[in-house]
Amino acid sequence: MTHIRLTPLAESLPANVPFVGPEAQERASGRPFKARLGANENIFGPSPRAIAAMAETEMWKYGDSESVELRAALAELHGIRPENIIVGEGIDGLLGYLVRLLVGEGDAVVTSEGAYPTFNYHVAGFGGVLHKVPYRDDHEDPAALFAKAAEVDAKIVYLANPDNPMGTWYESTVLERALDDLPQGSLLLLDEAYLECAPEGTAPELSADDPRVIRMRTFSKAYGLAGARIGYAIAAPELITAFHKVRNHFGLNRAAQAGALAAVQDQDHLRHVQSEIAAARGRITEIAAENGLSALPSAANFVAIDCGQDGAFAKAVLEALVARGIFVRMPFAAPQNRCIRVSCGRPEDLDHFAAALPEALAEARGA
Amino acid sequence: MTHIRLTPLAESLPANVPFVGPEAQERASGRPFKARLGANENIFGPSPRAIAAMAETEMWKYGDSESVELRAALAELHGIRPENIIVGEGIDGLLGYLVRLLVGEGDAVVTSEGAYPTFNYHVAGFGGVLHKVPYRDDHEDPAALFAKAAEVDAKIVYLANPDNPMGTWYESTVLERALDDLPQGSLLLLDEAYLECAPEGTAPELSADDPRVIRMRTFSKAYGLAGARIGYAIAAPELITAFHKVRNHFGLNRAAQAGALAAVQDQDHLRHVQSEIAAARGRITEIAAENGLSALPSAANFVAIDCGQDGAFAKAVLEALVARGIFVRMPFAAPQNRCIRVSCGRPEDLDHFAAALPEALAEARGA
Repeated sequence: MTHIRLTPLAESLPANVPFVGPEAQERASGRPFKARLGANENIFGPSPRAIAAMAETEMWKYGDSESVELRAALAELHGIRPENIIVGEGIDGLLGYLVRLLVGEGDAVVTSEGAYPTFNYHVAGFGGVLHKVPYRDDHEDPAALFAKAAEVDAKIVYLANPDNPMGTWYESTVLERALDDLPQGSLLLLDEAYLECAPEGTAPELSADDPRVIRMRTFSKAYGLAGARIGYAIAAPELITAFHKVRNHFGLNRAAQAGALAAVQDQDHLRHVQSEIAAARGRITEIAAENGLSALPSAANFVAIDCGQDGAFAKAVLEALVARGIFVRMPFAAPQNRCIRVSCGRPEDLDHFAAALPEALAEARGA
Repeated sequence: MTHIRLTPLAESLPANVPFVGPEAQERASGRPFKARLGANENIFGPSPRAIAAMAETEMWKYGDSESVELRAALAELHGIRPENIIVGEGIDGLLGYLVRLLVGEGDAVVTSEGAYPTFNYHVAGFGGVLHKVPYRDDHEDPAALFAKAAEVDAKIVYLANPDNPMGTWYESTVLERALDDLPQGSLLLLDEAYLECAPEGTAPELSADDPRVIRMRTFSKAYGLAGARIGYAIAAPELITAFHKVRNHFGLNRAAQAGALAAVQDQDHLRHVQSEIAAARGRITEIAAENGLSALPSAANFVAIDCGQDGAFAKAVLEALVARGIFVRMPFAAPQNRCIRVSCGRPEDLDHFAAALPEALAEARGA
């Protein structure tokens, strides 16, 4: 007998990773990327006040296990109560906690074919059973998601608005109406990681106490703090309190807490970043058009470019871009995988992309 | 029916916290602590090179999911292979992953009565059944732990060396010999959080490939980076690989990775801290003696002071110290709870403690 006896569930899981990171790709190729446009990071960076706050943090101290100051600032920003907010180690960390709380072995969960793989990773990791519905016109499809949830008695229904990887989105009223069909017994997990990149009127107007929904937000995207690993969820206090049963109470980096607080308090910088993102979306759309391709309208900090053929062709384009030092990614599932996904970047980053794309397309067409 | 359907296990768990943090205590009292000597943090602080490395980190980028540079530096430091190392969100985070991998509902786990409560929190959180053995002469008792593990068929046996909260320790040879009695089917989880504070010859000399043991280390103690939340485990590659099944692959703060790397590369600073810790242990021991109390010999960055009476008396001393702005903690279980636990501090911190202790003792004796 071995000393290492994994649970049957752990034994059954693959030792895989939802994404291969850009550093890992650079190590594999032996060359740094010229333009890092694949992970939907925010190259425009965080607020200088956040950078200063992180640098001033006394790192010999553990963080505040209750994130009281940050939760107070977020509550004020959103006009809700701190009891409606849990701060965690990025949305990825919060997804893990939520799935652990609700999903036991064999429990059903619903998401879209090709939606966020880290959510799927957590569901599989706790033994849940994933049911997937297709996108509809490159949008996640609330009606189909909720119908499937009713059919399989899902504990959680995942929906991202704006969507990743397509960048498509729904106006608030569409989701508000759709919620009427959310089955009893199913919780809507509304991933709003990209919300700050979207037009006004994208976030459904719901009470923070609405027991039907948990919303997740992050400092990794518009706030430019991906490396800090900090995000938060908004939900009814009953559900927020449940996180205290399983979360790593002292798991948050103290500088991340201070940086996030400073970022919330610098909404001017957020507006600056929003305008940079909008400009970059426009430039990516232009680059696509210059190459005879169409870009999908996006409310996120990236743009999906339709390469005009199938997934194999888009993959060839992506690989030719990566070979030229341009880090981009692409959707996993057909027909969305006819696209490549290009994160917003500074003009110089997008110039690299613009220079490489014609060659990449030529190479893919010749392949 | 509600939309929020917790698993039966989650439903059964309390929404508690293993420790109340000092910030939470300060909020409750309305006053900041004069001396923060309760969480075994390292007031002497991290390497200036770690501080600089964190400040220079581009926080808009996600961290490296594989922590390749840090694992390479740690492998060199310890003379082992990167395949023997997993980096995680502090020992607390790694404990959670390890328990999740090995402990299913009803599985047995063994620890000592009064040992690290966050480990117990994780075991309970995954439905494990804790079996506890008493300390022996204020030391954790390997023979009793391993005998209990055999009796209950434990998946994991927890042992800290040096011990927290008592500061006691075993020389390497004692644990090496004791391991002969570790039962097949049980993994020894050796928590070495305080190892860098201990004398040479404390760490058992074991192959990193030894399948019987996983060792956990942290940057929160001697390295002074508690706020960064980063630690690592050393084990056979078979077990290290299993962490990839469940861990949050992009969960590490990028600055924490850079800071930890710089800290490893500044062993001079570590030696400086070690001498400060030794001096502070001496000073705490003197303060105890000046008050007619005895301090236990410690190989950690704290000292347990025997208050000479029972747990209720030590608790009264602790509360009187806290009321005077001195944050300290105490063991949970008898007879160790006759002590208070005082973290090493700078001379000025310990002066505050020295000033408050006679009053606290008088108050406790009068109570």
